[in-house]
Amino acid sequence: MTRRGNNAASGAPDRNGPRTPRHSARATRNAGQRMRSILLDAASALFKAHGLGGTSITAIAGAADAFPSQVTYYFRTKEALFVEAACRDVLHIAERTEKAAARARTPKAYAGALVDGVVGADGLALFVEALTLARQRPDLTPQIARTIERLHVEGARAYAGQMARHGWRTHHAPDVSARRFWTIALGIALEGHATGRGAAAMAAAMREALGEVAAARAKTVSLRLATASGRPPGKP
Amino acid sequence: MTRRGNNAASGAPDRNGPRTPRHSARATRNAGQRMRSILLDAASALFKAHGLGGTSITAIAGAADAFPSQVTYYFRTKEALFVEAACRDVLHIAERTEKAAARARTPKAYAGALVDGVVGADGLALFVEALTLARQRPDLTPQIARTIERLHVEGARAYAGQMARHGWRTHHAPDVSARRFWTIALGIALEGHATGRGAAAMAAAMREALGEVAAARAKTVSLRLATASGRPPGKP
Repeated sequence: MTRRGNNAASGAPDRNGPRTPRHSARATRNAGQRMRSILLDAASALFKAHGLGGTSITAIAGAADAFPSQVTYYFRTKEALFVEAACRDVLHIAERTEKAAARARTPKAYAGALVDGVVGADGLALFVEALTLARQRPDLTPQIARTIERLHVEGARAYAGQMARHGWRTHHAPDVSARRFWTIALGIALEGHATGRGAAAMAAAMREALGEVAAARAKTVSLRLATASGRPPGKP
Repeated sequence: MTRRGNNAASGAPDRNGPRTPRHSARATRNAGQRMRSILLDAASALFKAHGLGGTSITAIAGAADAFPSQVTYYFRTKEALFVEAACRDVLHIAERTEKAAARARTPKAYAGALVDGVVGADGLALFVEALTLARQRPDLTPQIARTIERLHVEGARAYAGQMARHGWRTHHAPDVSARRFWTIALGIALEGHATGRGAAAMAAAMREALGEVAAARAKTVSLRLATASGRPPGKP
């Protein structure tokens, strides 16, 4: 303040002046984001353990060493916090899984690594519940829509990069593959958690739904067509 | 009672005797099933309009011209009634849709009719919510598991019948196709209702996820392989 006052009095342009409040604003913003992040971590762990209904704002504040009023200041309602925690978690899962899958040497191994990293994750179950919740709460829809869009875009980008690096060719364009992958992951998680399936059974069901069988058969059909050359095709 | 007493006294075998109580038991059972069905109809309409949270047992009883105690007598809890109504609805949707699709003359038209009949239906949205609910309520899991199993079995049976009638051949076995179809339908409905998509957009997304693009491309690849005969394959 003193310096700003001095500068204003001298009339000289102040190169540091605008920087000082900007820096403080950034510091405040960073502190706010740290607190948001701490609250999201605490909320995510409690929601996974006890569900939306079994978790209170007081419990979340307690686990984050914060006041309940800080929870409502940053997130307004428990439901909005639930959706934000679920969206953040599923984006983390996707990022971590895409990094791990990048080591795969074949399309089949790549798909397998994606399936294993995503389908049994607690965070995916939370995201499924957030999607169901958003149906009743249109105010929560935009964040869900942005998250799904980002899963699709990042998934397509990762897949296209992997294909380019290894010179793979597949039936589907990367954007179609990414959308299919997440639709099937959501369907499998929804069915699997409702019927008490384990992660391994969900992964097997997801591999089947992604159509590895179809790919294998399509190859056989192509080869038969290629060698048949005029002969009527034999029995399967 | 009088007749049973008489027969017991005379010692003669009574051909009508066992029939009378059996008939009464059946009449009582039928009346019970009629009341269950009326309550399920009323509940289903209210749940679709107001959701699980916005519908009370009293409202359901009122809409069915029954007492609240009858609701709890037949279904115990509102959640159990919700799951039963959702399971019944989705089985009806599947049956109706498979009947309508049976008129299709090509595999593509068949898949399209199934998608259109299922994906935008209110009953599918209800079933998605029932699946989410069952995750928190293991007592509701068995009915969900039976319903999914029946969707798969009936879907595979309908598809196999259609293939046999028309002599169609496809990449997937009927049971795999039926499981994929329902997984993708659930995933699409979950995403679509959470993000406020309309029925037409959900149907388009589902057709893409089912992989019509893949089928069309696979055909092109096969034809190219078949005609290439020794030449290196040209650019796509």
